[in-house]
Parts: sequence; C-alpha cells; structure tokens
Amino acid sequence: MLFKNVLIIGVGLIGSSIARALKKNSLSNKIYALDINNQTIKKIRDFDIFNDIYLSISEISIEFDLIFICSPLSSYKNIFSELNSKIKNKCIITDVGSTKSSVINDFNSKCNNRFISFVPGHPIAGIEKSGPEHGFSELFKNRFCILTPKDKNTEEVNTVKKLWEIFGMKVEFMNANYHDRVLAMTSHVPQLIAYSIVATATELEEHMKEEVIKYSASGFRDFTRLAGSDPVMWRDIYILNKEAVLEMLGRFTEDLSFLQKAIRNNDSMLLEKIFTSTREIRKLIEDAGQAGSFNPTEKKD
Amino acid sequence: MLFKNVLIIGVGLIGSSIARALKKNSLSNKIYALDINNQTIKKIRDFDIFNDIYLSISEISIEFDLIFICSPLSSYKNIFSELNSKIKNKCIITDVGSTKSSVINDFNSKCNNRFISFVPGHPIAGIEKSGPEHGFSELFKNRFCILTPKDKNTEEVNTVKKLWEIFGMKVEFMNANYHDRVLAMTSHVPQLIAYSIVATATELEEHMKEEVIKYSASGFRDFTRLAGSDPVMWRDIYILNKEAVLEMLGRFTEDLSFLQKAIRNNDSMLLEKIFTSTREIRKLIEDAGQAGSFNPTEKKD
Repeated sequence: MLFKNVLIIGVGLIGSSIARALKKNSLSNKIYALDINNQTIKKIRDFDIFNDIYLSISEISIEFDLIFICSPLSSYKNIFSELNSKIKNKCIITDVGSTKSSVINDFNSKCNNRFISFVPGHPIAGIEKSGPEHGFSELFKNRFCILTPKDKNTEEVNTVKKLWEIFGMKVEFMNANYHDRVLAMTSHVPQLIAYSIVATATELEEHMKEEVIKYSASGFRDFTRLAGSDPVMWRDIYILNKEAVLEMLGRFTEDLSFLQKAIRNNDSMLLEKIFTSTREIRKLIEDAGQAGSFNPTEKKD
Repeated sequence: MLFKNVLIIGVGLIGSSIARALKKNSLSNKIYALDINNQTIKKIRDFDIFNDIYLSISEISIEFDLIFICSPLSSYKNIFSELNSKIKNKCIITDVGSTKSSVINDFNSKCNNRFISFVPGHPIAGIEKSGPEHGFSELFKNRFCILTPKDKNTEEVNTVKKLWEIFGMKVEFMNANYHDRVLAMTSHVPQLIAYSIVATATELEEHMKEEVIKYSASGFRDFTRLAGSDPVMWRDIYILNKEAVLEMLGRFTEDLSFLQKAIRNNDSMLLEKIFTSTREIRKLIEDAGQAGSFNPTEKKD
C-alpha cells in the first residue's frame, strides 16, 4: 500500500502519531499537515515529517488520496463543507473522532461530492497527555480500532482497515449508534466522573486541598490521570454524544445511590457482595490483555 | 534499632510487605505471624521469614516488643481485647488501618493494660492486588505514612516513626478525625465510585458487557484497577468511616449533577472551563511526585 499525498487535519496527539506511523512504515510519498493553531504549527515544523504545513483548507492547491480528520468534533462540519467544494479527484476521508453518529450526520449534511468516500473510524488509543510533541508511532499497537461505515465491503473501507492494521491495531466493525453507547460506558462516563471528582477536590478548603494532592497515591490519582486530557476534545464529546452519555450516567448514579444507602444503613453484607462481584470484571479485563500496567513509582525520564 | 520479637497480625499484602521489610533490614531477631485464614497460612509457610505462625492469640506463649495489626478493621476490637489480657511486658502496638478515629475508639474501649503503648498509623501504600504472595519489601518506598497518636513526643511514637522511615516512608502526624476526612476524599470515595461504575457495567446487557471489557482501554480500566482490591477491607472502611465518606460523597454527587446539567443544556463553555481547571490538579500531583506512571501495554511477567 502506498499513498501519494496524505493530509492530516488537526495535529495533536493522535494526528501526530498517525503521521509518525505513516512515515515509519513508508506508506505515503508525501505527508501534509493542517492545523489552525499557531503553537501547534510551531512545534511540528521541527518534526521532519511534513512536506508542507497549512493553516486552512483554502490555501491548499494539491490533491490528496487520503485525508485524516483528527481535529475536535465541533470542527467537522466546516471541514466537510470546505472539502466538499475543494476535492476534484478520488479521495478517501477518514477520521478518529470519539463519537460516530454525530460525525456521520455532519458528513451527510455537508458532503455530496462523488469523489469523496468517507470511512468513519475511531482508534481507541491515547495517553493522558495532549499535543503533537507527545505523539509516537507505536501508540496504536495492540489497541482496537472501530470502523462504522454504512457498507463495510467497499475498497475504501478495506484500505483504511489495512492501514490501521499496519499501525498494529485490531480493526472491528460496528454500527455507529452502538459504538456511541459502548464508548459512553467505557470512556465518556468514566472521564466525566474523573473530571467531577477532581472538581470536588478543587473546591475543598485550601489546607485540605494540599493534603489531597499529597496523599493522592491512595486512589485519587487514578482519576486525575484521566482529568489531565484535552478539555476541548472532551467538551465536544459530551455535547455530541449527549443521549448515550446521559443514559449511562443515569445508570451510574442509580448504582452509586444504592451503595450510598448501603453505607448509611451499615449493610456490610451487601457491600461485601458488591465489592466481590466487581473484582471479576477486573479479572476479565486482565485476561483480555487490556489492563495495561501501573507502576506506583514515578517514571524516570 | 533492633527488636527481639515482632508479631504481625493479619498477613495480607501489607502485613507480608512489613515482614519482608523487617527481614531485609534485619530489624528483628525473630518475626512471627498470626492469621485466621488457612489459605494465608498455607502460603506464608513457604516464605522463610516467620519463626512461628499462629492461628489465634490464645495459643501464643512468648512476649513481643512490637505488634503490627494488619487485619481488617472489623477485627480490631477482639484483637485489642485479647491482647489486653495477654500482654505482661512492655509492648508497642501499632496498626496500618485506613480509618483512624474508629481504631482509636476501639483501642480505648478495650485496652487499659499499662504495658501497652498504642501508636495508630496508616502507611499509604498499596497495589490493586491483595494477599501475602503479592507483598514486597519496597512497597513503602517514597510513600507517606500518617501517624495519629494522642501525644507525638513519646519514645514509642518515635520508634514507630523511625521504623517506617527505615522502610522508606515519609512520616507525617495528623489528628485522627482530619486523617479520616482527607482519606475519605483521596481514597474512600474514589474507591466507592470505582466500585460503582464497575457495578454499572456488570449490569449492562450481556453483549454490551463484552464490548465494555474489550474496549476498556478507553478509560474504564482505570476504575477497574481500584475495583480489584480486597472486598472485606473496603467493606469495613465504609462502615467505620461512614460520616466522612457520606460528606465527601455528597459533595461529589452535587458536582456530578452540575456537570450532567451542563451537558443536558449544551453548555459547552462551562464544560470547557471545568475541564481546563481540573488539569491543574493533575499537574500539581505530577509536580509532587505522586502520580506514578502508567504503561498502556501489558506488563511482561
């Protein structure tokens, strides 16, 4: 597989990791970047990956055979609209957005260009840091990538699938709505809870706030890891996956109230029963090879 | 510092790590274990650490200069009561329990033996696995240990302090009630939330449960790490630190409802603002050297 010109729109953690993986695997003759953020552009100038860097779609004069959209979800509508008027040759557009129904709706409302094939995708990979300087080509290795195309048997879908597989991902197909519910449970609600508990700690009395930071190793820090990620990305996810997030959040708050009541009633048998059953899920995640590994000591740089 | 006979009551993760650290640093002539669990006793027989292993306090015939209580909090009352009648020579009793007011109350209600000096303590160290086979002597290194004695200027308090320092801990003194509120926020409530969200996932439709496990790398797994720890230990913590846990839990659910409302109202500005401010707390934890390090790939055994 070899592309002529690949464009990456939005060069954050994921976009820059894609660029690095393309280069490492020699998958494109030329790689181009587009970002509206001056800070980002400054950083990626030194990368020795990109043949050119653009600030907007309007200044582009060449043709691409593959475009990755890796920008915040709220930017998609405009991007689709501009690409719709720009593209004059066969081109695959794919994306990495964390919600898929909203992305497909945005595409359908803005694109009717017969040269464009859109393959909605979501590589489930990331670290808690954001920004192009933290990207690395191995980010996708052994992680899952979910594709949610209307028809999974097209050549373009197969091309995108193969590309992610070369990056080391296990590719799965899913219905977009189902994807959004699964991700609400595995990602969007856990993230919201992490934000929420960190916000709670932020509002404690000043002296207690210091203690919370000092003794965070006792559990709290696991939540702050998530709360360290990109605010704009997450803002967009909650607005665009609202229904599924509110559904799963409702289930969670019911379960939390149930536990709260058990504590208030000193129901130690019930607590022990629940705590024992949750252990099994952890075991299943470890068995599935998705647990990662945590080192309680600091990383040596 | 050299003890003659040290007894460890409750040889789980923490108890066995203390035993290993004592041996490694040659701090006691003899080290003894007591556990009521046959499985545990079977495991620790092979350890080559303990000079003798007991199943109950009644079968003990020798004298100790130091006793560590590392058993679940609900066992303390009986232990204090039995030690109160047993001990006939000067002995320091210290503990590692996660709540301190309840422990002090238990001690005061059961012990009036003038040979006993009780130094309530809480080494804030642990991993998500439980059981003596997972213990290791370096568990305490660079972590905090909180002591909550009535009077911090006694010889016995100083002995316990020095011992934890030899194990690598940074020792701090705190009022017991204050300790319980800080830990409710940094540990007990995060843990409860982790249990709760894992319980929510457990109750999803069967097919979706499989997906949740498969795609847990997207955030959910950070919660399951906590939910993997010992059910009995946690059951006791919630019953015995009820007031502080319910207070902090109340604050958390208020903050979560606030975020939920912002999502329902599409208030993207508010969401972005909150998500940006929580990032700062993460930064402070990293700066404090308490963040640990997470590797998204599996640990190679």
